[in-house]
Amino acid sequence: MQRHFHEELDALKQTLLAMGGLVEDQIRRVMRALIERDSELAQEVIDRDRQVNTYDVEIDEKCVELLALHQPTAGDLRFITTAMKIVTDLERIGDQAVNIAQRTIELNPEPQLKPYVDLPRMAEKAQRMVKESLDAFVSRDTDLARRVCGEDADVDALKEQIFRELLTYIRLILVSRYLERVADHATNIAEMVIYLVESKMVRHMLA
Amino acid sequence: MQRHFHEELDALKQTLLAMGGLVEDQIRRVMRALIERDSELAQEVIDRDRQVNTYDVEIDEKCVELLALHQPTAGDLRFITTAMKIVTDLERIGDQAVNIAQRTIELNPEPQLKPYVDLPRMAEKAQRMVKESLDAFVSRDTDLARRVCGEDADVDALKEQIFRELLTYIRLILVSRYLERVADHATNIAEMVIYLVESKMVRHMLA
Repeated sequence: MQRHFHEELDALKQTLLAMGGLVEDQIRRVMRALIERDSELAQEVIDRDRQVNTYDVEIDEKCVELLALHQPTAGDLRFITTAMKIVTDLERIGDQAVNIAQRTIELNPEPQLKPYVDLPRMAEKAQRMVKESLDAFVSRDTDLARRVCGEDADVDALKEQIFRELLTYIRLILVSRYLERVADHATNIAEMVIYLVESKMVRHMLA
Repeated sequence: MQRHFHEELDALKQTLLAMGGLVEDQIRRVMRALIERDSELAQEVIDRDRQVNTYDVEIDEKCVELLALHQPTAGDLRFITTAMKIVTDLERIGDQAVNIAQRTIELNPEPQLKPYVDLPRMAEKAQRMVKESLDAFVSRDTDLARRVCGEDADVDALKEQIFRELLTYIRLILVSRYLERVADHATNIAEMVIYLVESKMVRHMLA
């Protein structure tokens, strides 16, 4: 029975890794879909999220079953509860791939603004963090785990940079809004000229 | 007296045109400041707005004085009331130049996103509309005035286009947000590995 339990734990670990591999692949594919402007591939990512969710439920149920049947203690107990938490994070990473896929499908009919430079860099880093965190899990490598925690700051910094660019963009949008108002005022003046010359009030009638 | 009144009306028209020229120049200068990333020139535009405001008050007071002293009727009355309205529009166009100058000063320390193409086109159109509306006023040219009213749609269309680009940009920002969350989840996993292996809870302690 004890041996059987450890085989089950090993099978659980393998299933978790398979889920991790699927989720990594979802991120990889959705970024390819974004960069290559491939809406079909983005839709595939959305459809494949069902597999991620199936894994989520399956692993969770397996964990509960193991806890109930074997009432593990110490290390084994911690392994199972950790697995239950990891599976939640993996499922949410899968959701982010779906979010990116949805934005990709919305973006594809629009002209591309500029070549994507920061986003692929960010994606690569995030993807690597997912892979390394799972590697750390499998090999119980806390040095690698600590490195992953440190890398989070790089991704945050990239996001900050992209946000600053948005602010720049918003300021330019405001300039276009101001110019539009200049044109509105010129139109007012023109309407008043018509009023002046023809005694005809065209305001609220033209346009 | 009657002759004096028409001289006064003519002087009023000249002052209004001088204000129009100043305001046009403000738009021209501020767009140069934006494109050439010249914060000093932008500041000059802000400072020169006082001249625009001085014209505003001066013309308004002149109009009220003419109305009070001469109690004009028909065409002359309409001319003066129109001038009072035009001066308000000119003053607001001046305010838009100040707004653009403020955004320019904020934008200049940031790296330029892409060469400005649509904004100078928009500015040129808006500027021409201001000039043409004043020309129409001076020459009592209602055909030109009607053309200005028609051109407003072009400026609106350009603004719409710039807005669509912003939407595109916001979707890209969202992608960066999703990738940041992927990295957060990987970090969670890494923290749990440390917990699993070292029975140490580093969550909320690292980072």
